[in-house]
Amino acid sequence: MTPPATTSIDWIAADWGTSHLRVWALAGARVIHQAASDQGMARLARAEFEGALLDLIGPWLPEGQVTPVIACGMVGSRQGWVEAPYRAVPCQPMADKLIPAPCRDLRLCVHVVPGLKQAQPADVIRGEETQIAGFLARNPGWDGVVCLPGTHSKWVHLSAGEVVSFQTFLTGEMFALLSEHSVLRHSVGGWEDAGFAEGVAQGMERPERLMARLFSIRAEGLLAGLDPGHARARLSGLLIGAELAAAKPYWLGQRVALIGAPEVMQAYGAALGGLSVPVTAHDATEMTLAGLSAARAHLPQGERPCVN
Amino acid sequence: MTPPATTSIDWIAADWGTSHLRVWALAGARVIHQAASDQGMARLARAEFEGALLDLIGPWLPEGQVTPVIACGMVGSRQGWVEAPYRAVPCQPMADKLIPAPCRDLRLCVHVVPGLKQAQPADVIRGEETQIAGFLARNPGWDGVVCLPGTHSKWVHLSAGEVVSFQTFLTGEMFALLSEHSVLRHSVGGWEDAGFAEGVAQGMERPERLMARLFSIRAEGLLAGLDPGHARARLSGLLIGAELAAAKPYWLGQRVALIGAPEVMQAYGAALGGLSVPVTAHDATEMTLAGLSAARAHLPQGERPCVN
Repeated sequence: MTPPATTSIDWIAADWGTSHLRVWALAGARVIHQAASDQGMARLARAEFEGALLDLIGPWLPEGQVTPVIACGMVGSRQGWVEAPYRAVPCQPMADKLIPAPCRDLRLCVHVVPGLKQAQPADVIRGEETQIAGFLARNPGWDGVVCLPGTHSKWVHLSAGEVVSFQTFLTGEMFALLSEHSVLRHSVGGWEDAGFAEGVAQGMERPERLMARLFSIRAEGLLAGLDPGHARARLSGLLIGAELAAAKPYWLGQRVALIGAPEVMQAYGAALGGLSVPVTAHDATEMTLAGLSAARAHLPQGERPCVN
Repeated sequence: MTPPATTSIDWIAADWGTSHLRVWALAGARVIHQAASDQGMARLARAEFEGALLDLIGPWLPEGQVTPVIACGMVGSRQGWVEAPYRAVPCQPMADKLIPAPCRDLRLCVHVVPGLKQAQPADVIRGEETQIAGFLARNPGWDGVVCLPGTHSKWVHLSAGEVVSFQTFLTGEMFALLSEHSVLRHSVGGWEDAGFAEGVAQGMERPERLMARLFSIRAEGLLAGLDPGHARARLSGLLIGAELAAAKPYWLGQRVALIGAPEVMQAYGAALGGLSVPVTAHDATEMTLAGLSAARAHLPQGERPCVN
């Protein structure tokens, strides 16, 4: 078998979450290959991680040499490939020491990025620390607040290159549960922007009424024929509005950098813009790659601790 | 075939919800037989309701005469046996006119109790109106607030024998979704009373922080080994505390009659007692039977409109 034409791979970046695995082969900062699978942490036993990784990156690996892999996300949880213990804030988002994962394949050397923890109020980050590190690598010296909206939205206060404090909200998961599994599922579908703005306003103004407003969506569907697209957007707005009300100590008088997928950033950007908060938007995948690139500087030199 | 020994049945009461059907055969107010099945509204097509009812009550029906059946709950929804349109509040909880359901069996005459609706804020009741009517029948002239905790908790303001206004909270459904289907499911199990009191206090004090407090349960499980029973009770307390904060206009300065299952009434009673709200507790099944008994006075005489 002849070697592949492109043999210039320096390293491999992996974003390994609960439900998905995404990998990139890079030459320096340039992406040469990328791939993805649904082999997330949740469906893998400890001994299966290496195989799931090789399924995607095997074809890219040059023979006769060791290619470093740096992975972030739930792959480093207690149920992951190797536990990468949380680091306590305040601290820089990227660890000096990455955690080696046991490998059998001699072409591999895998390291995992540790997450962050906060004692009071109790909170954890695993995966987003890498996006924050990427953002800081791209914006050195930036002080302010980073918001990472998603299944578990994170609000993070950055100062002097360190994560000072953070707070997680169950917003995205709550939206999925309510819109797909609760009685509201009969009343929502599609998306109407007007409903979103209405929901954000209601959620911000009286966040303590959230539990009552939710059932109103169902009742308005039954009694007044509320449009399902309007209803679904209002549900999203209500939840995000309640999050913004609770996260006020984070964004009030601050500049906010959003890191996320384009669609969810647009929703948060619109809501924060309505509060006159200065917002910038940064693609989550780009920040992940920038963060894993920054982590590369911390790889141990001249050793291969990840051999099983 | 000889007729059964007990032929003294006057009528049959049915509580027919989304997921369950419960029936009682009565002589006046005395229960002679009872039965239940999982043939709730959600799993029945319109033509299947009569059969599901006969599966339970068929053996009780005297031959050669018509036995009246009165049913409340989702059996009267648009997806039910027959649509019993909502009545607008303010109004008495029990309708003067019950809605006949089409039957083929000549031994049956079935009527369904209509629910209640409120235009602003949009809200609906279907099933609980019968419990409220039962409570009023047992406590004539009672003014105050009725709270019916459950999957969809209801707060109802009663005055001069009428429902003046009401508000529904998604509390019970939210607890089920979060404790069984969200990331919190890894952290909760069992029950520790101390966690409940703590959650109620937190939920009442800062209801707008609900979405943040929820993830703390997970984080404390990971970081501090939070006891799963304490965690589950705190989750319940947080949600009920947030409901109580939002329902304050209902209970403040009022007496509250709780109608529900014993366990959930105990939880709400403890929380309301801590707020110095005078509370009485009333078994939901008893109130349903009392309400259906009260509805019996409204059955049309000398006709049988429910023949198909």
